[in-house]
Amino acid sequence: MLQPWKLIKEEVEFQNKYVRIDKRRYELPNGEQADYFIRDGIGNVASVLAVSKEKKFILAQEFRPGPNMIMDELPGGLIDEGEEPLQAAERELYEETGYKGKLIFLGETYVSAYSRVKKFCFLALDCEQVKHEVQEKEEEYEFIEVVLKEKADFLLQVQKGELTDLETALLGLNYLEKSDLL
Amino acid sequence: MLQPWKLIKEEVEFQNKYVRIDKRRYELPNGEQADYFIRDGIGNVASVLAVSKEKKFILAQEFRPGPNMIMDELPGGLIDEGEEPLQAAERELYEETGYKGKLIFLGETYVSAYSRVKKFCFLALDCEQVKHEVQEKEEEYEFIEVVLKEKADFLLQVQKGELTDLETALLGLNYLEKSDLL
Repeated sequence: MLQPWKLIKEEVEFQNKYVRIDKRRYELPNGEQADYFIRDGIGNVASVLAVSKEKKFILAQEFRPGPNMIMDELPGGLIDEGEEPLQAAERELYEETGYKGKLIFLGETYVSAYSRVKKFCFLALDCEQVKHEVQEKEEEYEFIEVVLKEKADFLLQVQKGELTDLETALLGLNYLEKSDLL
Repeated sequence: MLQPWKLIKEEVEFQNKYVRIDKRRYELPNGEQADYFIRDGIGNVASVLAVSKEKKFILAQEFRPGPNMIMDELPGGLIDEGEEPLQAAERELYEETGYKGKLIFLGETYVSAYSRVKKFCFLALDCEQVKHEVQEKEEEYEFIEVVLKEKADFLLQVQKGELTDLETALLGLNYLEKSDLL
C-alpha cells in the first residue's frame, strides 16, 4: 500500500504576474528527500464547449503563444478569486464570444502531475449571441474572432487535437451524443 | 482575418533540470508589444491507456506532487531525445507497469495555451505482464504500484477526472467503444 509523501518544505522558486513555480521538498517512502517543482500555480481554470441554438460550435479564434499559432479554441480562462467555476465559464464565454447559454457541468480534472491547477469543464447549450461585437472593450478583446463551426468540421479539429482543451471537447461531445442533442 | 503575432524576442527567464520558462515578446496586431511566459518547455510527453488481455485497465498508482496526492495514473512520461512518441509510450508502459501490448496512436494535442509541449496519446491493447516486479530498478520505480481496474471502476474514475491524462483516457475509451473492444 502506497503512502503519500511527506511535505517537508515549500517555497516560491519563481514568480511574476502570470507564472509561479513552487519548490516542494518531499520525504520519499525510502527516507530520501527530493525537490519537485510545481508550476502554473496562479489559479484554476474553466473551459466551455459551447453550442449555438443553430447547433454550431462556438469557438474563439486567437493566437496562442505556447503553440505559437492561431487556434480555434474553446472559450475559457482563469477563474477569478471569489468566483465559482460556473460563473467563470459563463463570463469567459460571454467575454470571448458575446454568447450566453445554458451551462452544464461536465467534470473537473488536473492539468498536470506537476501543477495544482484544476480545470473545470462545461457544456453550454442553446447559446445565443447577446453582443454582436466582441470588440466592445477594444484593448482586451480585439484579438479574438468568433468562429461558428459545423459538427463535421469541429470533429475533424478534435481528431487532430488542434485545441488546448481537448478533454472538455471530448466530455462535451460524449454528453451531446448520449443525450441525442446533436 | 486574424494574423499571427510577430515574435520580437525570446529568452530563458528561468531554468532548472525540470522546468523552464521562456519569455517571449510579441508585437500584437495593434502594434503594441507584450511579454508572454511559456512554461514546461522541457519536452513532449506520451501517455497510454493500457488494457490487459483480461480487459482490465492497467494503471500506475503513484504520488503526484502537483495535486499532492496518490493517484491511479495512466502510464506515461517525457519523450526522450531521439525517441519516437510510440517508443516512449511503450517504454513508459513497460517501465512503470511491466506490461507490453499492441500500441495504437489515438492523437496528439497541446497541453496548454502557454506551453509548447505536445501530448501524444496511445491505446495499448492485449497487454501482458512481462516483468512481475516493477521494482527491478529500485531507485527509480519503487514508488509505483500497478493497479488493474475493472471497466466500471475506471469509468467512475474518469467521470471524477481523477487523473492527469483525461484526454488520453477519453480518446481511448471512445476508440474501445467504437471498435466494440470492451
